[in-house]
Amino acid sequence: MKHQNKNQSSFGMIGLGTMGSNLLQNIADHGYNCSGYDNDAEKVDTVNHLSRENIHAFSDLKEFAQNLKSPKVVMLLVPAGKIVDSVIEELLQVLDKGDIIIDGGNSHFTDTERRFVDLEKKGFHFVGMGVSGGEEGARKGPSMMPGGDKKAYETLKPILEKIAAHVNGDPTVAFMGERSAGHFVKMVHNGIEYALMQLISETYEVMKKGLQMEDKEIHSVFEKWNEGRLKSYLIEITRDIFAYKKKGAHHLFFNDIKDEAKAKGTGKWTSQAAMDLTVPIPMIDIAVSMRDLSKYKDLRFKASKLYPDPEKSDFNTTEYIAKLEEAFYFSMVSAYAQGMHLLDRANEEFNYHLNLDLIAKIWRGGCIIRSEFLEDIYAAYKKDSKLKHLFLDESIQKSLLKSIPSVRSVVSDAVLQGIAIPSFASALSYFDNIRNEEMPANLIQAQRDFFGSHTYELKGKEGVFHTDWEVSNH
Amino acid sequence: MKHQNKNQSSFGMIGLGTMGSNLLQNIADHGYNCSGYDNDAEKVDTVNHLSRENIHAFSDLKEFAQNLKSPKVVMLLVPAGKIVDSVIEELLQVLDKGDIIIDGGNSHFTDTERRFVDLEKKGFHFVGMGVSGGEEGARKGPSMMPGGDKKAYETLKPILEKIAAHVNGDPTVAFMGERSAGHFVKMVHNGIEYALMQLISETYEVMKKGLQMEDKEIHSVFEKWNEGRLKSYLIEITRDIFAYKKKGAHHLFFNDIKDEAKAKGTGKWTSQAAMDLTVPIPMIDIAVSMRDLSKYKDLRFKASKLYPDPEKSDFNTTEYIAKLEEAFYFSMVSAYAQGMHLLDRANEEFNYHLNLDLIAKIWRGGCIIRSEFLEDIYAAYKKDSKLKHLFLDESIQKSLLKSIPSVRSVVSDAVLQGIAIPSFASALSYFDNIRNEEMPANLIQAQRDFFGSHTYELKGKEGVFHTDWEVSNH
Repeated sequence: MKHQNKNQSSFGMIGLGTMGSNLLQNIADHGYNCSGYDNDAEKVDTVNHLSRENIHAFSDLKEFAQNLKSPKVVMLLVPAGKIVDSVIEELLQVLDKGDIIIDGGNSHFTDTERRFVDLEKKGFHFVGMGVSGGEEGARKGPSMMPGGDKKAYETLKPILEKIAAHVNGDPTVAFMGERSAGHFVKMVHNGIEYALMQLISETYEVMKKGLQMEDKEIHSVFEKWNEGRLKSYLIEITRDIFAYKKKGAHHLFFNDIKDEAKAKGTGKWTSQAAMDLTVPIPMIDIAVSMRDLSKYKDLRFKASKLYPDPEKSDFNTTEYIAKLEEAFYFSMVSAYAQGMHLLDRANEEFNYHLNLDLIAKIWRGGCIIRSEFLEDIYAAYKKDSKLKHLFLDESIQKSLLKSIPSVRSVVSDAVLQGIAIPSFASALSYFDNIRNEEMPANLIQAQRDFFGSHTYELKGKEGVFHTDWEVSNH
Repeated sequence: MKHQNKNQSSFGMIGLGTMGSNLLQNIADHGYNCSGYDNDAEKVDTVNHLSRENIHAFSDLKEFAQNLKSPKVVMLLVPAGKIVDSVIEELLQVLDKGDIIIDGGNSHFTDTERRFVDLEKKGFHFVGMGVSGGEEGARKGPSMMPGGDKKAYETLKPILEKIAAHVNGDPTVAFMGERSAGHFVKMVHNGIEYALMQLISETYEVMKKGLQMEDKEIHSVFEKWNEGRLKSYLIEITRDIFAYKKKGAHHLFFNDIKDEAKAKGTGKWTSQAAMDLTVPIPMIDIAVSMRDLSKYKDLRFKASKLYPDPEKSDFNTTEYIAKLEEAFYFSMVSAYAQGMHLLDRANEEFNYHLNLDLIAKIWRGGCIIRSEFLEDIYAAYKKDSKLKHLFLDESIQKSLLKSIPSVRSVVSDAVLQGIAIPSFASALSYFDNIRNEEMPANLIQAQRDFFGSHTYELKGKEGVFHTDWEVSNH
């Protein structure tokens, strides 16, 4: 059955999976007529069976397009990669110059950059938009990171601001910057997400294997942490996971899940892009590589038999948890700081015209990494929009100084007990090198010049130099 | 002045920088007639002014080619990237089908893969060959990692085996494997090199800032280490750098070098490729990101004022150095193990037909990462060609078990003292997770399913599952 609609739609969605369908319902909730398209008839039916007066789904692309008001606004929520290109190609047949195409998927920013340039030439407005918040966020209010065509954004703004989450009355959407800026920002968001998830999993490891706490006690810790400065979506869902039992079961359900972490690749993209931009983000790197390591279950099983645990120490749990909270705080700050640093460098390199305060502001709600601490990040960049690193903010410095002894102690204890806490350790060594006025990198330069004549620079002198180390040495 | 040569050359070299010139001289030393070409007339003159009877350099490509015996063998030593493609294009005009082109530069393996396929179609033999050993190696005997066309390698073998370094009578060259295998192996070699150099620089940091040792004492340590199981080219040159003074100076010269490490990108390529192959190589990742961090000198200066050092402890230097040697050994093993693991995975993924024992064998001499320990790696893979990880080798396990308490102690001390030792810490946390039969990755999977319905797997059950965590929870 085809739906005919007298009132043309203000918003069209291509891709009617749960995310697409939820976002349409969210838009419809705010009084807009909207349309959906999918080449999977079943998904079209599912949306039409919602029987929402102002949502109409089509399995014919031309019909879908005819149902849209001019300028037509079409958002894609399809898998990243070649599918986006082929959908855009089809779409250009049914759209007119001046229409607006939004890519709301997790596209790689270099693809978005290419599509933006290409579509601009053809006379279409392209907005690469990161959307975070998962299925629930899509339905109730996501965080959205649009970038690309500023003028097109102004057209979209009224709708997007209504469907976004709101924090203190402000919507969690704003124009991020030029060309591929939206997808770059979303990629870094996901990188930070990887780092925070790794950090939480290591915290669990310390409580379970170091402090030998029961799941129930661990639940209480996350519950309590979510009432303080660590309050965040990821701690909140961890708390809930630590309460979730199947009916009649005596143990928490997540214990039945295989310890092999999957990934969709956005964390990897963040690390790879950061390396291209020469920005150190070791906590994101290690989160990516520890997910990878988790997949070598057979290797881990064999190695566990060859290398036994060292002896465990006894700790006072209550005291230790206070220390662990400080260590978590420190490392969490470091994870966000690394992500913000990457954004700052990308901004210089790509001329995105990013505003870091605005990014922190819209991340405060709707998205997966939303947290209390984002208020502090927002405040830091609002106070100083040119801040080069979060560690240099005075108020963050004060909190860090207080937490440093604890993170040193937690990392040291774990290292001695054989508990793997790579992201805590990495947060700390990153910090200790950032505050290292004289790194031992001069030795690396000497080595490079020794074996490869790669030259070096001297302190307080212009130019590059080379030494014939071996000859002069003897 | 043009040189005319009655005896045609067996080997042609394009690119007469120091590496190219040295390699030609090495080939000529072994009685072969050889030719060089460069579009820089000055470099051509420099080579001709060596006045070696069997080396002739040309600034005309056609003339250069006419001077070569059939099948013509031409090696490129030009900067990686587009230059390689344009040189190959020119070269095809003056070569005949069946001739052999060797790319001896640091090309990215994906470029080599593309060139191999392309040249094979056109009827040319292509060999992507990694060359390590720096300028000195090129002159006296490099380590060479050719891959691609096996048949072409058989033609080259007599020359390459003569000019290579030799260890116990065996040349440090062998056919690595299919297509881009040679450049992939060389890339991983360089990744390991990055990790070892970072490790040495951190060792210096511990001795300098932790033990407050003088450069002279540090020199003695490296000198002594180079006589034991840590004996290696990189420790050897570090020893020499710690002895090198300018005339009349009272301090070691390398102290005048800026602590900002540069990089040509092969370490970064290794990390990025490993992430694509889902192999954890955190020590290479951290070496890349610490070189990057060293470049933010202004940030480091500012942060050093905000975050003072913790108090230093007193240690007995002699006892500590013994412990540090164990920690270095442990971490060095880990660096090689991560590189070999990456090779093993790449072999599965790309069907390279690598032999890991052969790779270890040719790395024992001529190249930058040559070391005593490569004998152990060679022995391990010779004993078991299907070994999935060096940590699983019985003899390596024995040495590691002995060194583990020391590395735990060194990392713990450094962490408490505020000395940045990211690669030692990373070696250890990698190890502690490899021997972790139950990683906390099940929690990550639960979180991913919670916020994104990404599904999870269950222990001992086939299939993927999804839970509506929130609904079921309340």
